[in-house]
Amino acid sequence: MTPIEQMGQRAKDAARALAMLGPEKEYALLQAAGALRAHEGEILAANQEDLQAGEEKGLAPALLDRLRLTSARLEDMARAMEEVAKAPDPIGQVLLGEKRPNGLAIEKVTVPLGVVGVIFEARPNVASDCCALCVKSGNAVILRGGKEALRSNRAIVSVLAEALAGAGLPKGCVQLIEDTSRASAQELMGLTGYLDVLIPRGGAGLIRAVKENARVPVIETGVGNCHVFVDESANIDMAAEIVFNAKTSRPSVCNAMETLLVHEAIAEKALRRIAARLEEKGVELRGCPRACQILPQAKPAVEEDWETEYLGLVLAVKVVGSLDEALAHIARYSTGHSEAIVTESYGNAQRFLQAADSSAVYVNASTRFTDGGEFGLGAEIGISTQKLHARGPMGLSQLTSYKFLVRGSGQVR
Amino acid sequence: MTPIEQMGQRAKDAARALAMLGPEKEYALLQAAGALRAHEGEILAANQEDLQAGEEKGLAPALLDRLRLTSARLEDMARAMEEVAKAPDPIGQVLLGEKRPNGLAIEKVTVPLGVVGVIFEARPNVASDCCALCVKSGNAVILRGGKEALRSNRAIVSVLAEALAGAGLPKGCVQLIEDTSRASAQELMGLTGYLDVLIPRGGAGLIRAVKENARVPVIETGVGNCHVFVDESANIDMAAEIVFNAKTSRPSVCNAMETLLVHEAIAEKALRRIAARLEEKGVELRGCPRACQILPQAKPAVEEDWETEYLGLVLAVKVVGSLDEALAHIARYSTGHSEAIVTESYGNAQRFLQAADSSAVYVNASTRFTDGGEFGLGAEIGISTQKLHARGPMGLSQLTSYKFLVRGSGQVR
Repeated sequence: MTPIEQMGQRAKDAARALAMLGPEKEYALLQAAGALRAHEGEILAANQEDLQAGEEKGLAPALLDRLRLTSARLEDMARAMEEVAKAPDPIGQVLLGEKRPNGLAIEKVTVPLGVVGVIFEARPNVASDCCALCVKSGNAVILRGGKEALRSNRAIVSVLAEALAGAGLPKGCVQLIEDTSRASAQELMGLTGYLDVLIPRGGAGLIRAVKENARVPVIETGVGNCHVFVDESANIDMAAEIVFNAKTSRPSVCNAMETLLVHEAIAEKALRRIAARLEEKGVELRGCPRACQILPQAKPAVEEDWETEYLGLVLAVKVVGSLDEALAHIARYSTGHSEAIVTESYGNAQRFLQAADSSAVYVNASTRFTDGGEFGLGAEIGISTQKLHARGPMGLSQLTSYKFLVRGSGQVR
Repeated sequence: MTPIEQMGQRAKDAARALAMLGPEKEYALLQAAGALRAHEGEILAANQEDLQAGEEKGLAPALLDRLRLTSARLEDMARAMEEVAKAPDPIGQVLLGEKRPNGLAIEKVTVPLGVVGVIFEARPNVASDCCALCVKSGNAVILRGGKEALRSNRAIVSVLAEALAGAGLPKGCVQLIEDTSRASAQELMGLTGYLDVLIPRGGAGLIRAVKENARVPVIETGVGNCHVFVDESANIDMAAEIVFNAKTSRPSVCNAMETLLVHEAIAEKALRRIAARLEEKGVELRGCPRACQILPQAKPAVEEDWETEYLGLVLAVKVVGSLDEALAHIARYSTGHSEAIVTESYGNAQRFLQAADSSAVYVNASTRFTDGGEFGLGAEIGISTQKLHARGPMGLSQLTSYKFLVRGSGQVR
């Protein structure tokens, strides 16, 4: 067995034991959260080394910021773990129960998935978030983070693993693959027989690599080419505020908008108003020919602009002739994350809600709300952009499967 | 675009239109069922050609039987379609609904998966079953059957497609890939961008090939290495009836049992009684050394026997020292389909239900009940042996995804 297969076996053994536990999981996660606080010194020191190495390597400031831990951020991580720890146990819930005419009593009951793999990039809080969500839902987790965060992840995972084992959970609940080579990611993607699901958390490049190479079941997350369509009947002030918020409140996240579609009947007034608002934050505009006529400051958009998740202060702008043209554009270019319409028309709102095929579809609200916390679903392990198993924010419930328990008294068929 | 990509595009277009429909789906499927009856002559003639070619090629009698259509079997297919047609629409159901403190109204609503691919082998009824289940759940379906059944499938699918289109459904709801080469299956497995899920229906070889080659999301179905464990406290008469039923009532199906595990404290009495019952059907026994001591008629089992889904009148038999040893054997060799314990012990029943990690786990009943109809879930497209998305019998509900609809009044975050 390779080292990663050995980790897979340990995780599988741990998962079998974890599946039997109830309140023990809450206790152990509270201990683990406390351990993060107690080991602040060594975690921040490890993070400091990562940051220093990153600066020497010339990492981009945005990446360094994602990598950076502070006392406050570590406290946030501990609190997030505590919140997950105290959530209702998602395991053992009876989804259906029926007594059949032949006397068989059938129950459909939630169970853990088993072993969850997570490939992530530079944010060290992903390690503690995933650990809490997976363990609370009775799953063992194998983490494989980016090399920029290796020292931080090692410090965090060793603190968490020790605390969980100290609280009586099986060893192997949470493990970190310390080999950050391409080969280790590749091996994890092919770890059939051990992994029940692999969740990539990161940019479009990572997701694509996982989609192309994985032989274990995968849940795609987090690539958001989100659209806002300003309909003919829109309230222009509302449209400007929604676009401003969706584009600029946190441009680096997946629920930020990337393309504005505007109905031609309102384009001139709406675009001028919206562009003025976006100018406050220096947003660069890339428009279709008609948008560029209205907005001389816009650069001409090329085909690639419609496909791109900028994750920055750039916005593609297109004038469309109808709701249907907007829907067709979205069907072609969207990644299935979040779309919004701004409209005063009941019929167009209903049609957009039904026809836009994305995980979250909004009327008169910002796409930025696509988030487990904002939806009232609790902490999330990612936002699924696929339709199988889970769609949209994935919380504890989406980390479960189910099985049928059948109690009889000698029935045969 | 290749011909299969063109089918993918047609399916995708059809799926977008199908997603909007409600009662039209029921009407169209009833028309399609009627069309099966109306075209009985040409469908049975096409089937006759398949059977003749199969006989000339020397296909096994069991395979020919699966391939064979009769007037009665065609009537069963039409009735099954009608039942699915009349089931409640699984689309548009509100799974959750909440008004958030900021005034956003959030609903989690069921939607179709989109485009479903099905690779199947020789049973032509799979074509009509899958068509009914997929269309009722708002999905377009691309079928790729085995070459032995090509003429039958072509006749059935052309009748169904014409009837559905005649009833106003979009063209491309149901399509058959007529190229039965390995390459066409391979291409379907890689049809990312078009297929939302691929469901292989067939033997272990097909499932393995799909698992290894697919780049689209897959739901594994139908491989059942099912176990019955006769506990120390079992009622021996009940155990004999359950084993007899699970092994012999229909040995070629996935919920039939393949391995008998017996507690050593009851092994001698139980095995003699069970073996006598199985002898009536001429079941061949392959035992561990201790089982062979008790049953001189048994052949010695080799490692492969514990892994094999015989799908015939062969049974592997093993004497174990404890419930835990039985559970460990199941954890090692099971395909995660169905397992049963026969016991009078409350504690052992509870422990088996919790610890056996399969889609259906039974106390004192035959594994043969794992079936959508028997569970009261309606017709099924297959029995999933994986944990992601769907587990156990997959009916209409398991052919759906969901999305979040969010209605606001200008909310920004």
